[in-house]
Amino acid sequence: MPSTPRKIINDPVYGFITINHPLIFKITTHTYYQRLRRIYQMALAHLVYPGAVHSRFHHSLGAYHLISNAITELCSKGTEITEEEEVATKAAILLHDIGHGPFSHALENILLEGMHHETLSLHIMRLMNEEFGGELQMAIDIFTDKYPKKFLHQLVSGQLDVDRMDYLTRDSFFTGVSEGVIGYDRIIKMLVVHNGELMVEEKGIYSIEKFLVARRLMYWQVYLHKTVLAAEKMLVKITERVKDIFDKNDSLLKTGTAVDYFIGEFDGKMNEEALQNFVRLDDFDFMHAIKTWSTHPDIVLNTLCNSILDRKLLKIKLEAQPFIEEEMHQKLHNACQVLNIDAHEAGYLCFTGETVNTMYKTTDEQINILFKNGQVKNISQVDNALIHKTLSSAVKKFYICYYE
Amino acid sequence: MPSTPRKIINDPVYGFITINHPLIFKITTHTYYQRLRRIYQMALAHLVYPGAVHSRFHHSLGAYHLISNAITELCSKGTEITEEEEVATKAAILLHDIGHGPFSHALENILLEGMHHETLSLHIMRLMNEEFGGELQMAIDIFTDKYPKKFLHQLVSGQLDVDRMDYLTRDSFFTGVSEGVIGYDRIIKMLVVHNGELMVEEKGIYSIEKFLVARRLMYWQVYLHKTVLAAEKMLVKITERVKDIFDKNDSLLKTGTAVDYFIGEFDGKMNEEALQNFVRLDDFDFMHAIKTWSTHPDIVLNTLCNSILDRKLLKIKLEAQPFIEEEMHQKLHNACQVLNIDAHEAGYLCFTGETVNTMYKTTDEQINILFKNGQVKNISQVDNALIHKTLSSAVKKFYICYYE
Amino acid sequence: MPSTPRKIINDPVYGFITINHPLIFKITTHTYYQRLRRIYQMALAHLVYPGAVHSRFHHSLGAYHLISNAITELCSKGTEITEEEEVATKAAILLHDIGHGPFSHALENILLEGMHHETLSLHIMRLMNEEFGGELQMAIDIFTDKYPKKFLHQLVSGQLDVDRMDYLTRDSFFTGVSEGVIGYDRIIKMLVVHNGELMVEEKGIYSIEKFLVARRLMYWQVYLHKTVLAAEKMLVKITERVKDIFDKNDSLLKTGTAVDYFIGEFDGKMNEEALQNFVRLDDFDFMHAIKTWSTHPDIVLNTLCNSILDRKLLKIKLEAQPFIEEEMHQKLHNACQVLNIDAHEAGYLCFTGETVNTMYKTTDEQINILFKNGQVKNISQVDNALIHKTLSSAVKKFYICYYE
Amino acid sequence: MPSTPRKIINDPVYGFITINHPLIFKITTHTYYQRLRRIYQMALAHLVYPGAVHSRFHHSLGAYHLISNAITELCSKGTEITEEEEVATKAAILLHDIGHGPFSHALENILLEGMHHETLSLHIMRLMNEEFGGELQMAIDIFTDKYPKKFLHQLVSGQLDVDRMDYLTRDSFFTGVSEGVIGYDRIIKMLVVHNGELMVEEKGIYSIEKFLVARRLMYWQVYLHKTVLAAEKMLVKITERVKDIFDKNDSLLKTGTAVDYFIGEFDGKMNEEALQNFVRLDDFDFMHAIKTWSTHPDIVLNTLCNSILDRKLLKIKLEAQPFIEEEMHQKLHNACQVLNIDAHEAGYLCFTGETVNTMYKTTDEQINILFKNGQVKNISQVDNALIHKTLSSAVKKFYICYYE
Repeated sequence: MPSTPRKIINDPVYGFITINHPLIFKITTHTYYQRLRRIYQMALAHLVYPGAVHSRFHHSLGAYHLISNAITELCSKGTEITEEEEVATKAAILLHDIGHGPFSHALENILLEGMHHETLSLHIMRLMNEEFGGELQMAIDIFTDKYPKKFLHQLVSGQLDVDRMDYLTRDSFFTGVSEGVIGYDRIIKMLVVHNGELMVEEKGIYSIEKFLVARRLMYWQVYLHKTVLAAEKMLVKITERVKDIFDKNDSLLKTGTAVDYFIGEFDGKMNEEALQNFVRLDDFDFMHAIKTWSTHPDIVLNTLCNSILDRKLLKIKLEAQPFIEEEMHQKLHNACQVLNIDAHEAGYLCFTGETVNTMYKTTDEQINILFKNGQVKNISQVDNALIHKTLSSAVKKFYICYYE
Repeated sequence: MPSTPRKIINDPVYGFITINHPLIFKITTHTYYQRLRRIYQMALAHLVYPGAVHSRFHHSLGAYHLISNAITELCSKGTEITEEEEVATKAAILLHDIGHGPFSHALENILLEGMHHETLSLHIMRLMNEEFGGELQMAIDIFTDKYPKKFLHQLVSGQLDVDRMDYLTRDSFFTGVSEGVIGYDRIIKMLVVHNGELMVEEKGIYSIEKFLVARRLMYWQVYLHKTVLAAEKMLVKITERVKDIFDKNDSLLKTGTAVDYFIGEFDGKMNEEALQNFVRLDDFDFMHAIKTWSTHPDIVLNTLCNSILDRKLLKIKLEAQPFIEEEMHQKLHNACQVLNIDAHEAGYLCFTGETVNTMYKTTDEQINILFKNGQVKNISQVDNALIHKTLSSAVKKFYICYYE
Repeated sequence: MPSTPRKIINDPVYGFITINHPLIFKITTHTYYQRLRRIYQMALAHLVYPGAVHSRFHHSLGAYHLISNAITELCSKGTEITEEEEVATKAAILLHDIGHGPFSHALENILLEGMHHETLSLHIMRLMNEEFGGELQMAIDIFTDKYPKKFLHQLVSGQLDVDRMDYLTRDSFFTGVSEGVIGYDRIIKMLVVHNGELMVEEKGIYSIEKFLVARRLMYWQVYLHKTVLAAEKMLVKITERVKDIFDKNDSLLKTGTAVDYFIGEFDGKMNEEALQNFVRLDDFDFMHAIKTWSTHPDIVLNTLCNSILDRKLLKIKLEAQPFIEEEMHQKLHNACQVLNIDAHEAGYLCFTGETVNTMYKTTDEQINILFKNGQVKNISQVDNALIHKTLSSAVKKFYICYYE
Repeated sequence: MPSTPRKIINDPVYGFITINHPLIFKITTHTYYQRLRRIYQMALAHLVYPGAVHSRFHHSLGAYHLISNAITELCSKGTEITEEEEVATKAAILLHDIGHGPFSHALENILLEGMHHETLSLHIMRLMNEEFGGELQMAIDIFTDKYPKKFLHQLVSGQLDVDRMDYLTRDSFFTGVSEGVIGYDRIIKMLVVHNGELMVEEKGIYSIEKFLVARRLMYWQVYLHKTVLAAEKMLVKITERVKDIFDKNDSLLKTGTAVDYFIGEFDGKMNEEALQNFVRLDDFDFMHAIKTWSTHPDIVLNTLCNSILDRKLLKIKLEAQPFIEEEMHQKLHNACQVLNIDAHEAGYLCFTGETVNTMYKTTDEQINILFKNGQVKNISQVDNALIHKTLSSAVKKFYICYYE
């Protein structure tokens, strides 16, 4: 194995992140991975929280750091993890978000209709695996939960994975929402493998509760903050509008970036051409598109684009109950009149929808607590649990966005 | 009014604390207030969390800082607070813990049987009020909830007072339990007075939830940590044992401090003599007593005292169910044999008890949320509330402490 | 004066930033100011410090926050500042960086040859002042040091201004270089106006020393970090190369952004057209240009652009002595051979230069210390000063960048 | 080797401190080590910085944590350190302050005349070594610099040891003096062993400068803060006065603690009896003594003691020049008159002295920088060094303390 110069990266969140294996070095310096520098971790949340401009690149490095700590911890408790498994697990977490496109979740399934970022991550991982001569195979197996040691997958993706631990910690740090702080180091110290599954020691219960409550808070206060929601829905409407009015011959829609391909040519199949376009696509392309379209003659399109650029966003209301149709009609009517557009067009500027947040999915993968006496209980079944039935069902909220 | 030189105090938690009023200056430099420097805020919690050695002096200064911010915030929202009321409220919070004795809650009601620290605070406030020629009258009225502007009392003492905000923030800081961090600054920015009562604006709901969950976590993880519990119960047993074997002529029990008065002479009445003894009493006196008694011939007493000094504490188990009598018998029997003592004596070294933590008391003073539409709801009745009925009932745990 | 809804902005550095005046509100929501969201505060420093992706928008809000605190402090010490002056000073600091173009200092004087960002700031301030009917006149006077109360200008721009205090604090926060931390709150508490000039109280000396040393450290460790230097010099070379090979008819050079104007049309005069192009120009435009040019047939250009995108930067050495010509010749020769280019072209990929850092300019504006006895001394003349003559002279370092 | 349950200790400064070796466990739970819980790290600095109440116990645990990191770092760079050497080095740092008496440096050489704390540490280490059957021999050799691998001693005690790194970091944390923050983690990452000596890699220069400047700042702003100085000199005067008026038969001087032994019996020889008294002696004993003496009829003694208890300290002036005798005379005269005491007695309440701080001792052990080219230079000889000749000479200040 060729020797690698150890690399130390400054991280304001964890201090220093160390890279000390050739494969990890090869991944992090790869052009596909470097692209993540140009994808905001939190899409447009920075329009409300100006510090939230950190990248997916930074987040996945952070998750890598946490998984390194978690592996050290588990080993010190006697869990067997070979060096090869260790590197593969680290590779898997580094690449878990490699399939994120412009503005991450905000445009997921929209710009590339029907394409979930995990599917795209897998496509790119396979592409890299070929280039690397199979060196990423075990990482892919762990990522797709086909590797026998199930707990490695659970570290990468589960109710209590390092992905969530890093994004809560990091997003809380960069937004300045101190209530989102979780005790990631304590949680990691409480992790344990029992019967091949990742669990939490009994005395970690309160830290887990804290983790789940912090997540709930971050969702409502940050990720689904109504202004952020409005801004991100506007990205969706911009994309939909461009696709709607698309015309090969309209040179004013052309942006000179890979965005053009996904607007005008992509047919929903992730073939070689699509993939080659995708790995060049980033937030800069889409922002450039917005700047380009902000002078397009289509009034709906230029209105939406300028609104984003100047942060004069659509108004939004977020409530527990659905909005009555009458209110929607009124908003549409008003937009039609003010902008002199028709009802279909006004639909891009006035619309309703719903948004959902689940604190803890009891049906999905679960957080298990290992008691000193060897008993295992789902956290929702622990005595005096904070995370009871009611909370584990989803909370739905309704929004109306409109032009004024 | 005589001018005061402005005083700035460095606080690792909030940065700087400013004192800029003669009355506040007079209080903080008073010998009764200076005594709080010698009372640990967290009694013996430092035996588990070595950083937790901060004082009641520091905590009450911190609460004073927060109440200053809260008053500024409320004024900026149009609530009328006169300068006199402002100073009185600040004085009230500075003095709210002035009645704490050695090791605060750990020995409350024990060393001075039947004496709650708030009663003692009031005694001392009245003593100082006399000395200050009545300048503290309004502070006393606010402290005792006799002042018409009820919200001033609520700032000082209520479900969401600055006392709790400071101790959670400060204790979390000094213990290093990062999950105890609350968004005190956000909560303060969300405070509002409505119908004369202190409330929280709608968008502060998640911060309040976070505050209540952080409190729950701090209770089980820190304040009622089983080792801390054991250590603090040992302080109680030491006091009980000394009172039990007290004999005027036993010079080896004499400590040369005010502790002697409360062990041998105090009759439960807080008269002038008792009060004069109390205002000199601090943790140093009691620790000196422990050191003195550690060489006393009584085996129960010296065992307990040396255990504290060398941190060889009694063993403890903390469980959801009461312990069976059989277990208790066994422990007592063992202690009798090992130390060659009788069953009564062994009872100081082996004992059971229960401890209770309530996250939110729905029956007591409540946290009210003021909605944008003017509606007021108790936080436990808000849609999708985390703080539901179950959690607002008390959680009881049982412990057994024993000598091994 | 129309009432403004108070706006509170979360800042991970200071907690909360409050905007509570209509003029401030109007500035911060203006499209020219919003543009600063799209200019990195630290250009390409994030290639070394991944957290350093914060914006000029965020920095100027931070500086605004500090100036608000400083004004409060000075007023509390008896310095007279009218409300109008307060708002004007705040406006001046908000707008002090409004003239920054893409990648701030890295491309300053290059993309817009001969244009310093402060000149551009002034151009834009005047444009906004017209739009605002003269409301910004006093801010402009303070900014240009024409306002009689000289200390207001010194707060905005001087050896110890809030600009420096914020950027050191903020850049240290986002890079994670904890040694850059300064005691901004203590320094502000030590500010005082004496004979119309801004000074520092005697007991603030050590904090000022710490501030100057932190600045020195941040320069060598971060701002002039050799990898950052290489990356930023590459931006310069890209710009120079594009200008060099510019040809109106080369459509592959066209980016569809305002960059085109400054590459192909700008004649060095900041007329109406140039200004209108400038206020739309941001980092996204230039990054888009880099992406566009990365596929241009010119080998020098596409090599430099791809190097930035994939972070395969030119090699760099930074030393105290100039490099010998021989070394330069060798590097050039090597680049010519490897890339099959001529010596002129190789000059874009292999070049030398020097960089300078002065800790404290004794000749320029100075930091004055006001002693208790009324004496005023320059900090470099204080007894046992850390900031002695040697250090106040500039430190020059030489670099060689080359393709390998 | 018997297995030890791994112990994790919460530290607000570093997160978690891990103890995972039986010898380390045995040391930290030993009664001599537990005594350090009752010795303030910063003596009376908490009278100015209320957060500064952390203990020597906490500091030495912190230094242990840093030395663990440093050893891991050096090993990863190829330096050979056996497991036995690792444990011995950790033991040495844990015990380096075990010889501190009440109020540490403030009463050093005073209460136990002529006894330096390092001598006492060695006495106690030898005592423990006997008890542990020689297990501490290598630790003692490292501590006394007799062990061949010199760099192990340098980690424990030198210009750049973990002792200094921890106390600067920790004292800065607990006082809230943010300017004292050093980049301890970066410095540790820059450590290297070259020719058997501990050095710093070239790129760590600025962090070292920052470390030295932070130390200078902490000295003048915290450790030698004039109010702290006054308070600590008063402890000295109290001790001197008690020794001066000592009379076996004066029962009012008796405190019932080991203080009595060192006041009345100790003859300067650290024999078995003295040592047994010393290992029980702590801050609580001396504070109890102060409380006891505060009611003693000697006016000098009770004045000094009450001043400490009520924080009504002697006045102090700290200046670059010595005070003229006339001023001293006046202060003495005043004290004589006000308190009706004679000149000798007044000398305990009015006195002058000097205090010294050296930033970097060029003559003593040095900080060496290892350059990439293999060259080694003392940091004071590096180009453009901040740490030049002038600064490496000591800075002396003069104080006058007086009663008013």
